[in-house]
Amino acid sequence: MASRPQLTPLFRRLSRAPAQLSRKAALPVRQTRFLPSRLLSTSRPRLFRSTAPAAAVVGGKFTSETYPDLKRDSRFAQITPEHVAYFKDLLGEAAVIDGVTRNDTADDIEPFNMDWMRKYRGHCQLVLKPGTTEEVSKILKYCNDNMLAVVPQGGNTGLVGGSVPVFDEIVINMSRMNKILDFDEVSGTLVVEAGCILEVADQFLASKGYIFPLDLGAKGSCHVGGNVATNAGGLRLLRYGSLHGTVLGLEAVLADGTVVDDLCRLRKNNTGYDLKQLFIGSEGTIGIITKVSIQCPQRSAAQNVAFFGLESFEKVQQAFREAKSQLSEILSAFELMDEGSQALVHQVTKNQRPLEGQYPFYCLIETSGSNAEHDSEKLSAFLEDVMEKGIVVDGTLAENETQIKSLWAWREGIPEALSHLGGTYKYDVSIPLKDLYKLVEDTRARVEQAGLLGDTDEHPVRAVVGYGHMGDANLHLNVSTRHYDSRVEQVLEPFIYEWIAERQGSISAEHGLGLMKKKFIGYSRNPTMVGLMKNIKNAFDPVGF
Amino acid sequence: MASRPQLTPLFRRLSRAPAQLSRKAALPVRQTRFLPSRLLSTSRPRLFRSTAPAAAVVGGKFTSETYPDLKRDSRFAQITPEHVAYFKDLLGEAAVIDGVTRNDTADDIEPFNMDWMRKYRGHCQLVLKPGTTEEVSKILKYCNDNMLAVVPQGGNTGLVGGSVPVFDEIVINMSRMNKILDFDEVSGTLVVEAGCILEVADQFLASKGYIFPLDLGAKGSCHVGGNVATNAGGLRLLRYGSLHGTVLGLEAVLADGTVVDDLCRLRKNNTGYDLKQLFIGSEGTIGIITKVSIQCPQRSAAQNVAFFGLESFEKVQQAFREAKSQLSEILSAFELMDEGSQALVHQVTKNQRPLEGQYPFYCLIETSGSNAEHDSEKLSAFLEDVMEKGIVVDGTLAENETQIKSLWAWREGIPEALSHLGGTYKYDVSIPLKDLYKLVEDTRARVEQAGLLGDTDEHPVRAVVGYGHMGDANLHLNVSTRHYDSRVEQVLEPFIYEWIAERQGSISAEHGLGLMKKKFIGYSRNPTMVGLMKNIKNAFDPVGF
Repeated sequence: MASRPQLTPLFRRLSRAPAQLSRKAALPVRQTRFLPSRLLSTSRPRLFRSTAPAAAVVGGKFTSETYPDLKRDSRFAQITPEHVAYFKDLLGEAAVIDGVTRNDTADDIEPFNMDWMRKYRGHCQLVLKPGTTEEVSKILKYCNDNMLAVVPQGGNTGLVGGSVPVFDEIVINMSRMNKILDFDEVSGTLVVEAGCILEVADQFLASKGYIFPLDLGAKGSCHVGGNVATNAGGLRLLRYGSLHGTVLGLEAVLADGTVVDDLCRLRKNNTGYDLKQLFIGSEGTIGIITKVSIQCPQRSAAQNVAFFGLESFEKVQQAFREAKSQLSEILSAFELMDEGSQALVHQVTKNQRPLEGQYPFYCLIETSGSNAEHDSEKLSAFLEDVMEKGIVVDGTLAENETQIKSLWAWREGIPEALSHLGGTYKYDVSIPLKDLYKLVEDTRARVEQAGLLGDTDEHPVRAVVGYGHMGDANLHLNVSTRHYDSRVEQVLEPFIYEWIAERQGSISAEHGLGLMKKKFIGYSRNPTMVGLMKNIKNAFDPVGF
Repeated sequence: MASRPQLTPLFRRLSRAPAQLSRKAALPVRQTRFLPSRLLSTSRPRLFRSTAPAAAVVGGKFTSETYPDLKRDSRFAQITPEHVAYFKDLLGEAAVIDGVTRNDTADDIEPFNMDWMRKYRGHCQLVLKPGTTEEVSKILKYCNDNMLAVVPQGGNTGLVGGSVPVFDEIVINMSRMNKILDFDEVSGTLVVEAGCILEVADQFLASKGYIFPLDLGAKGSCHVGGNVATNAGGLRLLRYGSLHGTVLGLEAVLADGTVVDDLCRLRKNNTGYDLKQLFIGSEGTIGIITKVSIQCPQRSAAQNVAFFGLESFEKVQQAFREAKSQLSEILSAFELMDEGSQALVHQVTKNQRPLEGQYPFYCLIETSGSNAEHDSEKLSAFLEDVMEKGIVVDGTLAENETQIKSLWAWREGIPEALSHLGGTYKYDVSIPLKDLYKLVEDTRARVEQAGLLGDTDEHPVRAVVGYGHMGDANLHLNVSTRHYDSRVEQVLEPFIYEWIAERQGSISAEHGLGLMKKKFIGYSRNPTMVGLMKNIKNAFDPVGF
């Protein structure tokens, strides 16, 4: 499997929009990849100056150029025409994009070599598109036997460089394995191939009165297999829970070609260790997921969205507590935005803001239920209550689908607005709820103290803003910059990682480690755990390194 | 760790009620124990005549007498007075029940030696009650270094012989580690020590407006740590999901004393493999869980229960589909009982039956929501609808807490009623929903065909009945017998296990493997998976065998 040294993450600039993105364009996810176990560092690095900004400027540069310290592991073989012939014989010409023996395929290979943000770009010369589990198995066995490095790839919508090669790794793209295999209308159990696009699965379920228990911005492109491999979180984890609870079974192929058939369709099965859990969130490092079975909830008939302003993070927490208590079973999203983030969206879109006044914090609440009238009653009673109690200062309730979309845009439009204003240092973190916003305040104070924050051009930093999934204690800390300045990185890191580690938070809430954060696992996992992870990697992929 | 050969499960007779059982006395759970990895059989056994009835008559006999084929593994050391002295020095006299150097402790040790159904009884002479994680760690390190076998024990409410010794294994009882450590009222995250009794945790949460996301019959005795170690399912998995989704983190001690601190309190943490998942449902074979953090949902203000009769299993499935669709977010239980099971409850209790007529099937539906009026409206509309459509023939709705309890008793009273009538062969299985009841029909036909089923005393089998958690496709198949007859076992097994395996069901939905079903893992897990489980056992407990 591919040797993948630690990389410097890159300054993020949205140079093009991802293909097929749906309305909610906030959260594309990473994809599967075999990561070498030796890179799971057990020591907590303390000096990041030369390695670790969370963002940096690129534009289609090769990862290997951006990070010249990265070296291809010489234990991996070079791809030969004989190898290519084997794969063409196995899969058929149409399922192989061959840049090894042909020189007219560069344009065809490029989309598989680069992530959608153009942050990472590899030197891949061979893309394989298996159509069956058996083909995946034969590919992996052959690669394992011949020491050929591979990168599994789903929808390639990741944010952390996990789905594209660095050197000449073979891309195993799962897009041909895209079938919906089975659906039980009584139990709600869906079985799909890994390459099934999330939105396709969800639309199929909609026709049956069900919903996929995961929703995220990249749903129009991302694969269900990639969602599972990266344990995608998304917008409604608050309601439907994590994939660790909803995935019932999966089929995966190990590095040596062994097919692990754990495609259980049962909600309860207490017969030994729950192996599928290891594949959920393993980012493709212990096998390629080929099929998934998942428990799907009933689709809600009614949806409501409210948007309101609050005077402090203390009040935000009170509002969340009340929403959970009063809206309880119909609450499906509780999103947080600070004034800084909303001001930037306004600056870019010029849209009229939802509320007349400005407040330090805004929350977006969504309810989903089976009875529109009941839901409206509950939501109205809740809004009256929190306003009477002085928890919420002002609020608005969407009255139709257009207004619902418009309110969501103030939350989901933040990343895009930031991308129009320059570069952004992005951190996707989990922090115990009471301290969630303190990270933004402390980071802002630190940047300000260093003289880097201001309204004029000599200040590299325009704003330090925070938003995210309040219901999951998942904060997106964004530092919006006018221009690249190395002092910014020095101020941000390792400060932010240390701050998170001190509060037992997570340096990657939902985006995963990928290439970008692999080095920093020590901030969220102790050496004992990293050691056990290495043992597991070794048990599943003994040849991998 | 304890060597534990395969055992013949025993005919179940409830000779005494478990201590401290709450209202719902249906589902005590197994408990943690270190199982030797070599016993995870990769081959699927085909002949069970001499080994595998799901139930048999006992009454306090030693497991080693009932199953003389079981041999103590000679690689384990005998406990010496020096060992005892070490433990007394470590834990203090009060935390050690010493039957090694004293001969007046037999009565004190007995409750730790035997499961509550008196099915399994060991020869333990030493019970240790650690009070801290550090003590657990020192105990395990010492035992590992000195080749002393141990059995972790929680509330000892298991059904599969997983929480008691067979020979002289040291019992490590977790009851002293029973503290509630932390609760975050905003996020709903609870942190407890493993020995905290489930009902204690739930009562604490009730005072805060929250609920423990697990409920089962043994809640008054079972430990949260044991619940997690056995992945307990229970009554409301349908609503709150499995522990794989709700447990946020845990602390565990490995066999060599290593403390794995994964006591994460975050809903999202995508930084490497999710190791805690391996401990959930591992039945104590890879470590002793010492602390648990768990996401707790809002407690519902309103609860309703309906009970109705249906004419076929087809109609039951339709009713379930309609309940999910119409009751959706407020549905908290959907339980199934057949006429046979209800007739037996009536025969024993003489209580007036909830409905006037008799029907082949009955369902109990529970709703839990935040608004009593809304819930009643939804439930009434649902009941009207399913009766109009002819799905449900007759039904009744509880009007107060007493009636709610009374209706639940018709579901929860089944195991106890059966125990009054003789022995019961019990199977706790998961089967894809459409075939769920067919197992009961096919088993009944087979027993009938063998001439074993009848109303008179010469027939050993009184009834073959089915009931269970319809919402989770979890069936409890019970064969009620008048007297022990070896022909019954021959007719039931391996027939039932093969029947389940053919339909990709699970031979243990929620009770676990324990000692009782360990040998049969091959019916629900393929050799590849069992091989991977062995690798994992070896990675976590290299000295264990």
